Amino acid sequence: MTTQNENSGKIKVGIVGGTGYTGVELLRLLSTHPQATITAITSRGDAGLPVAQMFPSLRGYVDLAFSDPTNANLTDCNVVFFATPHGVAMSQAQVLLDAGVKLIDLAADFRLQDTAVFEQWYKMPHTCPAILREAVYGIPELYREKVKSAQVIGNPGCYPTTVLLGLAPLLEQGLIDLSAPIVADSKSGVSGAGRKAEISTLFAESSDSMKAYGVAGHRHHPEIHAQLKLLAKQDVQFIFVPHLIPMIRGMLSTIYVKLSEQGKQLDLQALYETRYQHEHFVDVMPAGSLPETRSVRGSNQIRIALHKQAETGYLTLLVVQDNLVKGAAGQAVQNMNIMFGFSENTGLEVVPLLP
Amino acid sequence: MTTQNENSGKIKVGIVGGTGYTGVELLRLLSTHPQATITAITSRGDAGLPVAQMFPSLRGYVDLAFSDPTNANLTDCNVVFFATPHGVAMSQAQVLLDAGVKLIDLAADFRLQDTAVFEQWYKMPHTCPAILREAVYGIPELYREKVKSAQVIGNPGCYPTTVLLGLAPLLEQGLIDLSAPIVADSKSGVSGAGRKAEISTLFAESSDSMKAYGVAGHRHHPEIHAQLKLLAKQDVQFIFVPHLIPMIRGMLSTIYVKLSEQGKQLDLQALYETRYQHEHFVDVMPAGSLPETRSVRGSNQIRIALHKQAETGYLTLLVVQDNLVKGAAGQAVQNMNIMFGFSENTGLEVVPLLP
Amino acid sequence: MTTQNENSGKIKVGIVGGTGYTGVELLRLLSTHPQATITAITSRGDAGLPVAQMFPSLRGYVDLAFSDPTNANLTDCNVVFFATPHGVAMSQAQVLLDAGVKLIDLAADFRLQDTAVFEQWYKMPHTCPAILREAVYGIPELYREKVKSAQVIGNPGCYPTTVLLGLAPLLEQGLIDLSAPIVADSKSGVSGAGRKAEISTLFAESSDSMKAYGVAGHRHHPEIHAQLKLLAKQDVQFIFVPHLIPMIRGMLSTIYVKLSEQGKQLDLQALYETRYQHEHFVDVMPAGSLPETRSVRGSNQIRIALHKQAETGYLTLLVVQDNLVKGAAGQAVQNMNIMFGFSENTGLEVVPLLP
Amino acid sequence: MTTQNENSGKIKVGIVGGTGYTGVELLRLLSTHPQATITAITSRGDAGLPVAQMFPSLRGYVDLAFSDPTNANLTDCNVVFFATPHGVAMSQAQVLLDAGVKLIDLAADFRLQDTAVFEQWYKMPHTCPAILREAVYGIPELYREKVKSAQVIGNPGCYPTTVLLGLAPLLEQGLIDLSAPIVADSKSGVSGAGRKAEISTLFAESSDSMKAYGVAGHRHHPEIHAQLKLLAKQDVQFIFVPHLIPMIRGMLSTIYVKLSEQGKQLDLQALYETRYQHEHFVDVMPAGSLPETRSVRGSNQIRIALHKQAETGYLTLLVVQDNLVKGAAGQAVQNMNIMFGFSENTGLEVVPLLP
Repeated sequence: MTTQNENSGKIKVGIVGGTGYTGVELLRLLSTHPQATITAITSRGDAGLPVAQMFPSLRGYVDLAFSDPTNANLTDCNVVFFATPHGVAMSQAQVLLDAGVKLIDLAADFRLQDTAVFEQWYKMPHTCPAILREAVYGIPELYREKVKSAQVIGNPGCYPTTVLLGLAPLLEQGLIDLSAPIVADSKSGVSGAGRKAEISTLFAESSDSMKAYGVAGHRHHPEIHAQLKLLAKQDVQFIFVPHLIPMIRGMLSTIYVKLSEQGKQLDLQALYETRYQHEHFVDVMPAGSLPETRSVRGSNQIRIALHKQAETGYLTLLVVQDNLVKGAAGQAVQNMNIMFGFSENTGLEVVPLLP
Repeated sequence: MTTQNENSGKIKVGIVGGTGYTGVELLRLLSTHPQATITAITSRGDAGLPVAQMFPSLRGYVDLAFSDPTNANLTDCNVVFFATPHGVAMSQAQVLLDAGVKLIDLAADFRLQDTAVFEQWYKMPHTCPAILREAVYGIPELYREKVKSAQVIGNPGCYPTTVLLGLAPLLEQGLIDLSAPIVADSKSGVSGAGRKAEISTLFAESSDSMKAYGVAGHRHHPEIHAQLKLLAKQDVQFIFVPHLIPMIRGMLSTIYVKLSEQGKQLDLQALYETRYQHEHFVDVMPAGSLPETRSVRGSNQIRIALHKQAETGYLTLLVVQDNLVKGAAGQAVQNMNIMFGFSENTGLEVVPLLP
Repeated sequence: MTTQNENSGKIKVGIVGGTGYTGVELLRLLSTHPQATITAITSRGDAGLPVAQMFPSLRGYVDLAFSDPTNANLTDCNVVFFATPHGVAMSQAQVLLDAGVKLIDLAADFRLQDTAVFEQWYKMPHTCPAILREAVYGIPELYREKVKSAQVIGNPGCYPTTVLLGLAPLLEQGLIDLSAPIVADSKSGVSGAGRKAEISTLFAESSDSMKAYGVAGHRHHPEIHAQLKLLAKQDVQFIFVPHLIPMIRGMLSTIYVKLSEQGKQLDLQALYETRYQHEHFVDVMPAGSLPETRSVRGSNQIRIALHKQAETGYLTLLVVQDNLVKGAAGQAVQNMNIMFGFSENTGLEVVPLLP
Repeated sequence: MTTQNENSGKIKVGIVGGTGYTGVELLRLLSTHPQATITAITSRGDAGLPVAQMFPSLRGYVDLAFSDPTNANLTDCNVVFFATPHGVAMSQAQVLLDAGVKLIDLAADFRLQDTAVFEQWYKMPHTCPAILREAVYGIPELYREKVKSAQVIGNPGCYPTTVLLGLAPLLEQGLIDLSAPIVADSKSGVSGAGRKAEISTLFAESSDSMKAYGVAGHRHHPEIHAQLKLLAKQDVQFIFVPHLIPMIRGMLSTIYVKLSEQGKQLDLQALYETRYQHEHFVDVMPAGSLPETRSVRGSNQIRIALHKQAETGYLTLLVVQDNLVKGAAGQAVQNMNIMFGFSENTGLEVVPLLP
């Protein structure tokens, strides 16, 4: 009874694929969200298992058990998050949309408008190009108006969020000399690899060591590249090297761009502060700052610091986020808040955990 | 204006010594507390520095600068937390009490009723034994009624909280065979050593390694020992070996006790569940559980698991907490909530950060 | 040619199962061993793959490729190490022995003389009890004479080595009051779990956290228990709780024993120093020492420190080793050295890596 | 006696400043060096303390105690290593040289030929410019002939070794389009910050987090820049951003260069393999490799991998080393070996520790 009263007025939320890191992070954020109630969380392999048995951190906060996807009554939800492998969301999208359910996909099914590029990188056909055309790329700071009325959100990859929010003010104003490539040297905590049984991300393999990976080609390269071209309104050369760092959460992109002549003259610090002054989750740090990833641990903040290098005419950008929050589940909840008219920070006022 | 209205009805909180880990943890928890507002935070060495400049994780949440202790107007507060080295709180206690300010000390000044023991272990005279006699040892689950009316709280050490809440149900019922010593083999994350410039807790010294320390004598030994005797209402033999573990936060005490004949017969799982059934922050896990420290990361929960070993007649208890929350700042806020009649979990509903 | 000359006089060594951590550790130690040459290393799944492609740390040191077990000509070797799952060594032992090959098993097939206990804990029948009866439990400091003439070595588990070498001087002299249980609270780095794709040992699961495991029963319990009884020449009560620590390598056993009346009187520090004075790999540290696991990182040393607790009559022992070296591959090479009459430290003079 | 015989024919080595990480690393490597014997190790603050008491990892390998610099009889040595803060070596150089002692400085006193640049970055006057002019910059793979006859070696910084060995083959052949800046995005383990009591490198501050630092200017920038210009025989634009990574040892430099037209055409993999084919410590990995820092943990190897990016005409280089070995103490010993006519790898055949 109490529960029902408490939930009246709340939207009903479903989560498909709740056993990975983006799934459990959605649970962490949504379990105390004042305007949403989780009504279903599915897992094919763990149906019947209480969620809090797999994730004891949720004891007292989540009473649900995982349900089999076929019995989950997802069409009763107001919104369904897909925290699944690539390809799952597009297989279920039409049924949910027909039932009036909004859909936020944390995988890649609705991120790349060019289905040929999708198919090249994800090795599967895109089965609902019509829905894809209506889907909105879910970075609210870039596409808030579209998010408001979206039925389907392609929630961005973790790396793209850092690179795109880092570069948007420059690209929007045409302040980069695009004759030189943009270089993004990105570093991610190991949780970015997901909660999958693999040797390469074992503690004894990935602790006290680091490496670059995906240098010859990473799936976030075409995603970022496509968005950069949209922001620049022209072609862009882009070099992207991700690195695996021995920390659980956290992402830092160090971005090197050649400034245009105008870019060299302008007060870029002021430009960034103005561009993001009303953005609750984007923190333009004071000039000269050196953001640490832990300064956003567990929170939806993204922090940006600018370093102009006069002798070369380059700008170095430092952008940090929690890859599981602003880089995934937090941004998804932010999108949900916008889609349902809630205050954008509802349920997302988590002070970063430091130390 | 807005701020003033927001703060009306809130209590005013001062923090003395805000640059250590318990200080910044108080800030994290109190900055979003709906019934408290931080009005002063002192630091002799960093007076004038904006708090969020030292701890960028607090940008947007804490606008205060550190103030010099002499100008901090602490007597205007309703409650003052001391997150200082041992000895500071007792030097300022009388002035604050005279002004009607309640006091919660996170150091050791008000933990040990026996001043001779205090002086032996902390190498300083106790300067206010009269206040000490009125002080309450701040574990709400053991002394809630006294906490309600306390003017001064001696907030417990991190290790003692795990050992005492782990053993209380047995000791209260006389279920331990006290002819054998109680053994607490405790493990703590490195933040327990504080935010002090020391070689032994450098990353390159304490990462990827572990050790026991304080075997010949640790300050929490007499604190735990005194409380064990109170709970047992008799003398107790106690062996305590703390260990330093390469993790930031988290504490696990593995406790070995010889059960009395009655203790061997009883359903201890049921006993614990009953003892703590109304305790919001004590989680008696299902029989056979193996709690991980990360299951409480950032939260005020303490989790207990029982393992009876039939062949020896011993019980092994596993108790985990976040040493900076239930082991320090969180428990201090819990005490504050009780002292001011707030709901005990106010401001403390932080879902543990996992992974 | 050169190679042949270099190898003349060296023994030929085979390794079955070279892709796990004990396998690669054997390769590290044996690749520079002056009196042994690795002639075969098998892996069913990775046959044909150059070893140094899987483990680039071995580039320049190991030129072999993994070979299929069926083609490995192991009978041409002088000695074969099994770094395999339990059950493999016993399936191949007779063939090798018939060919005059000595055998060192790093799994459990030849550790437990009681086959019923083996079958209970390892869930498989023991298929060569006759060979088992001749096998020697390979802790040289306890059974050196037997090792010298052994054809089959059951190389001990990692935990047992710490507990047994920690307790041997006391048990040999009857200085423990065995009416109380011996408690071993042991802590291991994550490499102890092996190089297997499993979720629980992923970096993002096991980093910055710790837990006890196997409290209800760990396979090393019966192994240690059996050896303790041999050393004590009577029954012994034994409590064993292993813990998983976020470090790659390293093991610390904190052992609590009740001293006999004679034990309380004796100078135990002197006793230990005498007992181990000729042992190259056992370091009895000065009284009051607090050994760190990193002090043995990468080396075959085991370090022991004694802490007498007068008020309870208990002795606390701190024993550290590198779980992959003295706890596995290093001890195996030490056994090999003894079996072939080499100086015991040949190939094992690796200075620990600190920091 | 035995010792004396053992040491006959060995050179005598002194170490000034043995309590930091490069000092203890020199001890690790030299303690088993067959042609060198350590006769003095100084520490002003810890004179009298046995070295192995500070670093128990050296128990059994180093019997010396720290001696006061004033009594150390360094002039009796054949070679003295300075593992000291900047400025110490130059204050003692003349006396040692006058006594015929060779000198290897692991600090910056003899790295920068331009004393004005030295004074700008190190905030102290250079007191022996004449000695500096004769000093050799100690990267054997670039300056081996000069090292052979050097009396004074300026042992390179850790970052410079990775960048210079990574770029030398291209710069020597003029294959970089120097109209674009060279970008080195470098990552270092925390031991690179030294063994100093500082808050920022505490475990609880630098674990599970990462950051860029020194973006506005790092002392290795001018050092690398000067050497790049020497190799290129012209001016070079250079952007350098170092990062602090939560691992003890290890360094990865990700280097981005624009290839010249000729550079785009050439088989650069073959070029690198040829350039370094006789270099024992430089490993050009197969095309497409992704070197991990752990693949060189504890060893003097440096590994390089090339990644050509056709669409942009850029080359990305991945270079890993152990910052304390090839980046400091190992390279110093390599220089010593060359200076005294020993085989270059003497004492340096340490197989990397993996995992």
